[in-house]
Amino acid sequence: MSVLVGIVMGSDSDLPVMKDAAKILDEFGIGWEMIISSAHRAPEKTAAYARAAAGRGLKTIIAGAGGAAHLAGVIAGHTPLPVIGVPIASGALNGVDALYATVQMPPGIPVATVAINGAKNAGILAAQIVGATDPGIMEKIIAYKDKMARQVEHKSEKLQQLGLEGYLEKMGGSKS
Amino acid sequence: MSVLVGIVMGSDSDLPVMKDAAKILDEFGIGWEMIISSAHRAPEKTAAYARAAAGRGLKTIIAGAGGAAHLAGVIAGHTPLPVIGVPIASGALNGVDALYATVQMPPGIPVATVAINGAKNAGILAAQIVGATDPGIMEKIIAYKDKMARQVEHKSEKLQQLGLEGYLEKMGGSKS
Amino acid sequence: MSVLVGIVMGSDSDLPVMKDAAKILDEFGIGWEMIISSAHRAPEKTAAYARAAAGRGLKTIIAGAGGAAHLAGVIAGHTPLPVIGVPIASGALNGVDALYATVQMPPGIPVATVAINGAKNAGILAAQIVGATDPGIMEKIIAYKDKMARQVEHKSEKLQQLGLEGYLEKMGGSKS
Amino acid sequence: MSVLVGIVMGSDSDLPVMKDAAKILDEFGIGWEMIISSAHRAPEKTAAYARAAAGRGLKTIIAGAGGAAHLAGVIAGHTPLPVIGVPIASGALNGVDALYATVQMPPGIPVATVAINGAKNAGILAAQIVGATDPGIMEKIIAYKDKMARQVEHKSEKLQQLGLEGYLEKMGGSKS
Amino acid sequence: MSVLVGIVMGSDSDLPVMKDAAKILDEFGIGWEMIISSAHRAPEKTAAYARAAAGRGLKTIIAGAGGAAHLAGVIAGHTPLPVIGVPIASGALNGVDALYATVQMPPGIPVATVAINGAKNAGILAAQIVGATDPGIMEKIIAYKDKMARQVEHKSEKLQQLGLEGYLEKMGGSKS
Amino acid sequence: MSVLVGIVMGSDSDLPVMKDAAKILDEFGIGWEMIISSAHRAPEKTAAYARAAAGRGLKTIIAGAGGAAHLAGVIAGHTPLPVIGVPIASGALNGVDALYATVQMPPGIPVATVAINGAKNAGILAAQIVGATDPGIMEKIIAYKDKMARQVEHKSEKLQQLGLEGYLEKMGGSKS
Amino acid sequence: MSVLVGIVMGSDSDLPVMKDAAKILDEFGIGWEMIISSAHRAPEKTAAYARAAAGRGLKTIIAGAGGAAHLAGVIAGHTPLPVIGVPIASGALNGVDALYATVQMPPGIPVATVAINGAKNAGILAAQIVGATDPGIMEKIIAYKDKMARQVEHKSEKLQQLGLEGYLEKMGGSKS
Amino acid sequence: MSVLVGIVMGSDSDLPVMKDAAKILDEFGIGWEMIISSAHRAPEKTAAYARAAAGRGLKTIIAGAGGAAHLAGVIAGHTPLPVIGVPIASGALNGVDALYATVQMPPGIPVATVAINGAKNAGILAAQIVGATDPGIMEKIIAYKDKMARQVEHKSEKLQQLGLEGYLEKMGGSKS
Repeated sequence: MSVLVGIVMGSDSDLPVMKDAAKILDEFGIGWEMIISSAHRAPEKTAAYARAAAGRGLKTIIAGAGGAAHLAGVIAGHTPLPVIGVPIASGALNGVDALYATVQMPPGIPVATVAINGAKNAGILAAQIVGATDPGIMEKIIAYKDKMARQVEHKSEKLQQLGLEGYLEKMGGSKS
Repeated sequence: MSVLVGIVMGSDSDLPVMKDAAKILDEFGIGWEMIISSAHRAPEKTAAYARAAAGRGLKTIIAGAGGAAHLAGVIAGHTPLPVIGVPIASGALNGVDALYATVQMPPGIPVATVAINGAKNAGILAAQIVGATDPGIMEKIIAYKDKMARQVEHKSEKLQQLGLEGYLEKMGGSKS
Repeated sequence: MSVLVGIVMGSDSDLPVMKDAAKILDEFGIGWEMIISSAHRAPEKTAAYARAAAGRGLKTIIAGAGGAAHLAGVIAGHTPLPVIGVPIASGALNGVDALYATVQMPPGIPVATVAINGAKNAGILAAQIVGATDPGIMEKIIAYKDKMARQVEHKSEKLQQLGLEGYLEKMGGSKS
Repeated sequence: MSVLVGIVMGSDSDLPVMKDAAKILDEFGIGWEMIISSAHRAPEKTAAYARAAAGRGLKTIIAGAGGAAHLAGVIAGHTPLPVIGVPIASGALNGVDALYATVQMPPGIPVATVAINGAKNAGILAAQIVGATDPGIMEKIIAYKDKMARQVEHKSEKLQQLGLEGYLEKMGGSKS
Repeated sequence: MSVLVGIVMGSDSDLPVMKDAAKILDEFGIGWEMIISSAHRAPEKTAAYARAAAGRGLKTIIAGAGGAAHLAGVIAGHTPLPVIGVPIASGALNGVDALYATVQMPPGIPVATVAINGAKNAGILAAQIVGATDPGIMEKIIAYKDKMARQVEHKSEKLQQLGLEGYLEKMGGSKS
Repeated sequence: MSVLVGIVMGSDSDLPVMKDAAKILDEFGIGWEMIISSAHRAPEKTAAYARAAAGRGLKTIIAGAGGAAHLAGVIAGHTPLPVIGVPIASGALNGVDALYATVQMPPGIPVATVAINGAKNAGILAAQIVGATDPGIMEKIIAYKDKMARQVEHKSEKLQQLGLEGYLEKMGGSKS
Repeated sequence: MSVLVGIVMGSDSDLPVMKDAAKILDEFGIGWEMIISSAHRAPEKTAAYARAAAGRGLKTIIAGAGGAAHLAGVIAGHTPLPVIGVPIASGALNGVDALYATVQMPPGIPVATVAINGAKNAGILAAQIVGATDPGIMEKIIAYKDKMARQVEHKSEKLQQLGLEGYLEKMGGSKS
Repeated sequence: MSVLVGIVMGSDSDLPVMKDAAKILDEFGIGWEMIISSAHRAPEKTAAYARAAAGRGLKTIIAGAGGAAHLAGVIAGHTPLPVIGVPIASGALNGVDALYATVQMPPGIPVATVAINGAKNAGILAAQIVGATDPGIMEKIIAYKDKMARQVEHKSEKLQQLGLEGYLEKMGGSKS
């Protein structure tokens, strides 16, 4: 399976969040690779990776970072590929800093930003980008969306069957 | 030229911002269409448009809205295509509301969010999505990035030639 | 007892918050129903529910969601009934995103927004809407407010009797 | 025409915003009255008005205020009627203060909050509350929503006819 | 000892914070009383207390509340005395709502606002207000400030003696 | 007339805001003095002024500053008098910075903070502090509050007489 | 005069702000150079400039940018010199984005951040860095601070002479 | 080893954060001293320390404080040395207050602000200031940056060897 999506993160402490991008790509059967790099601590490595990505056959790069999250933007500066940014919640500002530093890119260099800690959605977005021109992947995305709708329906039916108290009890949650 | 990108906005008051997406797509020679719809005032029309988009050959949809900006998310709920969201600054919160309402999507339904009022970048991102599998578009994106780098270089050289005061005077800006 | 209030939530993880709306409606003797749906993952179901609500005799719908909380607004787009929105705290932004995405609706489609996680107040507001034309419910709301005033009075009297240290000890709280 | 909706504001400087509530109620043929009062500068008058409202036949009260916007909450403390709050943008915080001070009410005393400066939506919400038990008003709300959908459709069609440049020119807006 | 300071809070859940105001007033030998009331749930009691305060010999009132914290402002509307507001952190917005709702009062009705959860400083401020015309209290405030300066000096000297590691160890804190 | 209130500001650019404190003190017949100093640019002068204030017979000091507004806090560190802080809106953060820097004082050193740009309320608060032990000033404050209530009443009556359109026209405001 | 300070900005639109850094360095007699570069649009140029700076004899680099302001952080990744960041207010978030993106750097790569639009202070800070080991520059900084204190004193004296109304009139400002 | 860097903090509760500045200075072999002082509780001590610092041979001062963090700014008012500010997260606003109160200094008195709780970076910045004119320290900074880049490279290689699941397991983190 050829690698179509690169997943980059600024620190291995981002791995528990960023792994969700890889896992959902596995569900869609899309090949990925994952590296740790840093816009500030390893700028040469980051630039080299980004510059080579399109030539190596990648279709998109997902980049996750916290704080003054420059990683996605810096990668976007070095590649013509669409770059997906995942702002990661960390430290006192809890991800608002990472969100602003990822999404507010200047004209000319977009970063496709997802929710704070939204690595799963970054993976789905990468699949949609691949799927835009790959009918097999597109089919899988449609099936995935159908499954989500059925899951919501299923939970709602269970709520009718069990009633409010019964459902809460089954969740093991607060029953007041 | 076949239409590859749909541009949707919640109100014609968003047009002065959203036109920048269309203009940059014109630069890249990518066909687009533009409609006004609304997640709240015309929900049927919005859903119908989103559901039909993939079948009509679109590769991505750009959606711009202000305030409680639900448009991009609602469209993303109805299509397997990648959806690009443009939060538009309007009203007392000046776009922070639109940013949060666009980017903070729940797991399963991503919206590729760009900067507040970042319609130009939405267009470039759409081009990158198309270009991920279209070498001709990819070439144009590479050329576009080279041009940007040269423009920065050019301005910096001019600043050296004219000096600070000279450059400011030429800008017609504050000279203190 | 006929169902007058629909309670909708985007995910069963919202149930521990949203149950408070149902419980207070029980106190007022007002019939309710509760479903799980989603503006994004189950958009057809959500739209169908909202469109049918008025015809089924509902007087108001309470909708709770977190993050980019589109649920209340989307429902409001599909029904002439008053819609009450409960922004739910979740994720890194802790409900500010849900508050803005719920309250900042565009002209034409209001959502009656209560406090973040304010599901109990959503239930009271629903009772007040029913009570605006139902004298029996109105009586119960007046009695409820009287009871609240007496409870405050009662606690204040106890504080005088026990003194500050005594009251804190009884609360089992911090005694410095 | 009997008065069903009270509109209260903290200062006559709020009138240019709050007038929109009255105008939309006129469209729906619902009687309203409007007073200036203040939770802080005229607390007795405010309390007296709120306490008398239900007995005088009002069905709901709309209250608009800026800054530390206590007006809606204070009125809600004195009446069993549903109270609609309009946070008004003013001063350095531009309405975020008014939004928080209006919406974050404690359990027991809800305020149905609309968008910052959202007086028109407050009027529509008042109409929906009246309409919940008045089929004639309900009909008008349904018609109003249909008209909004048609207006969106109409603008979108015009955009197709005129094209982007033509439409922008007609708006007299930026043509780049 | 005559009562010079009234301490009011919206709920007994505020007591663990508000007790600090009483304790510091005890240190200064200033008489206080403490009641639980609520701007929304017990509006009559709150108004009656505030209207009577000056006549009963109080010199200032401290009011603490969370969320849409109207208590201090409502009391200020009913008394000519200086009113000190303590915004209390609670719920999803963690006190920003209470801060804005307390401090952003309209012209004519000030509330002397202290830090979020700053009940101790509210007590000191009350002492300073009493001390402005009571030389005995003024002396105690001067002594209190001298003691604080000496405590800082004392800790700094200990840090020199113990060294960084020694001091951290003694704190039982992180030693890396 | 002896000077009871010191008014200090960090820059003469704050004068158009801070003059309102002086004007309202004039209305109450309370003597004031006004100086320009700065916690950062003239720290010795600021400290000297604050240290001498109580001995010179001042009863309270009002301090206004913008940005990282340290002035009120620094003065409070040097005097046992109650210090009133006026956060001034300036620069990109428009007063939120000044509000936080003024109100969030550490335990031991309170600043009685009023609204952003709330210099008039700072003057009223100073009068209330003086009035807490001066029956003549107390009388004037009571009269001032009565006048405010009558003004609100007067405007409301005028609104009834002129009607909405008539009143708006008289305001010269938006008439839709 | 040898160049000791590099001033870099992301766009020539930042020049009206950033010129203040150059002007104050002129006052201190410290040589500077100014270039336009961009972390995103001209990443190679930016990296090359930063890598060469220390070897060329620069002592510090000042970098100003708006939005997702990565420029200072990216430069700091490529040089061992102290880097001063100026967040520039632009767009809908008015500099909060630039502040967070500049100051919230990860451990290992600091950026010495000044106020939003604080280019003058960036220049003074650069002078202080040079002055830390250059007694002549240190002397000038001391003299500069003395001059500021005298200017404050001078304005305060003028205020005493002219009185409040007189001073306001001379400012040509609001006289109420 | 002569002391080149002063580390000041407002309270010993800041020590667990501020110790990181001392530790990194130890790594670079730069002498430091550490004192506890307070802009508000010990203003004389703080001013005296700051005024003496340059004469005692210090090259820079690091100041850390939380809440209305005036310490760095007040020190900067009393010394010509570059002052580095560390905003410390504490209380309900979690460091946003400290950030704004530290960074938003008025023209004339800069504070070189690092990230919230960024004491380690404050130490590195102090080393860079010393290193700007000390080639030995400069060498150490260059070596430190190289080590960081190698560490990132090393972790990324390990991730390739162990794979995603293996690496997560080794971290002892979430494995889903």
